[in-house]
Amino acid sequence: MKRKYNYEIMDLIKARWSPRAISEEKLSREEIMPLIEAARFAPSCFNEQPWRFIIADEEESLKKIRNVLMPGNQIWANKAPVLLLIVAKKNFTYNNEENFWHMFDAGTAWGFLTLEAQKRGLVTHAMGGFDMDKARSSFNISEDYEIITVVAIGKYGDKETLDPKLRSKEHPDIRMETEALILK
Amino acid sequence: MKRKYNYEIMDLIKARWSPRAISEEKLSREEIMPLIEAARFAPSCFNEQPWRFIIADEEESLKKIRNVLMPGNQIWANKAPVLLLIVAKKNFTYNNEENFWHMFDAGTAWGFLTLEAQKRGLVTHAMGGFDMDKARSSFNISEDYEIITVVAIGKYGDKETLDPKLRSKEHPDIRMETEALILK
Repeated sequence: MKRKYNYEIMDLIKARWSPRAISEEKLSREEIMPLIEAARFAPSCFNEQPWRFIIADEEESLKKIRNVLMPGNQIWANKAPVLLLIVAKKNFTYNNEENFWHMFDAGTAWGFLTLEAQKRGLVTHAMGGFDMDKARSSFNISEDYEIITVVAIGKYGDKETLDPKLRSKEHPDIRMETEALILK
Repeated sequence: MKRKYNYEIMDLIKARWSPRAISEEKLSREEIMPLIEAARFAPSCFNEQPWRFIIADEEESLKKIRNVLMPGNQIWANKAPVLLLIVAKKNFTYNNEENFWHMFDAGTAWGFLTLEAQKRGLVTHAMGGFDMDKARSSFNISEDYEIITVVAIGKYGDKETLDPKLRSKEHPDIRMETEALILK
């Protein structure tokens, strides 16, 4: 099923989806950092900017992240040249009270990041399927941060190299109807 | 202080900020719905799409939302022609288990929404300062949904009409350094 649009929206959003066929071609830090920069300018509650990132783009750190992924993600995401761990600071810096919006604001930053990637011809695929406790200990991440997602980033690859079971899922997902998003 | 960019990013993100001087000029549903459509195509865990919206754009619903805003927000946001309440479904629909990413994914949808608004010449300002319990009872929102933020939406207005205390804050906020977002 193809995505259908009930209202015209920007091409970047229409073109963006979450592929698994990611090319093994390496990305330089110069190619990665603009994505972080885009995330940096997301809005957040009290301008707290709770989003933080661990960039794995060389063998040692990539191995550590691959190790925490669920097997179903490993079979495709292990090829990605960049695996980005997104975490969020749980408390406000100014008063150390709980920041109710830390996950929400980190999501906004991820939204900016993925669209900047799309603009630069990179694909991104966020995964929830990984061992968060293992990620925390592998990277020695303090309890001050909520561990949220691992994003595979790279250039689009060759769909034919995907595991056959995944090949049939290699297309943009559809969405529920626009009207269903409006509560009355 | 002006925003400084360490890496080149898309103009839409650079231009976006959260003004308070919003014009009272009404927006039609045709002007509002593309923002919801943009949010609709955000990625989410298991494609759950937990984001939901209450659109207040006529007197009765606007009054209800204005009533739950903190006084510091009321003095500017009461003029906005649209107040959008963003909520997120807490549990996955397919198994009714807790969705750890419901706030994160709703944040991504808000990120898409605010950039689509920016593209269309509209400004958006998300607020955390409101009475969530009162919002829940006023709009009869089920406990299935987390109430997250109220967003003021409209065309940019006249800065001179702002309360003098707010006028000095009427500029894009700066951000922490890019490198400070990277955990090692």
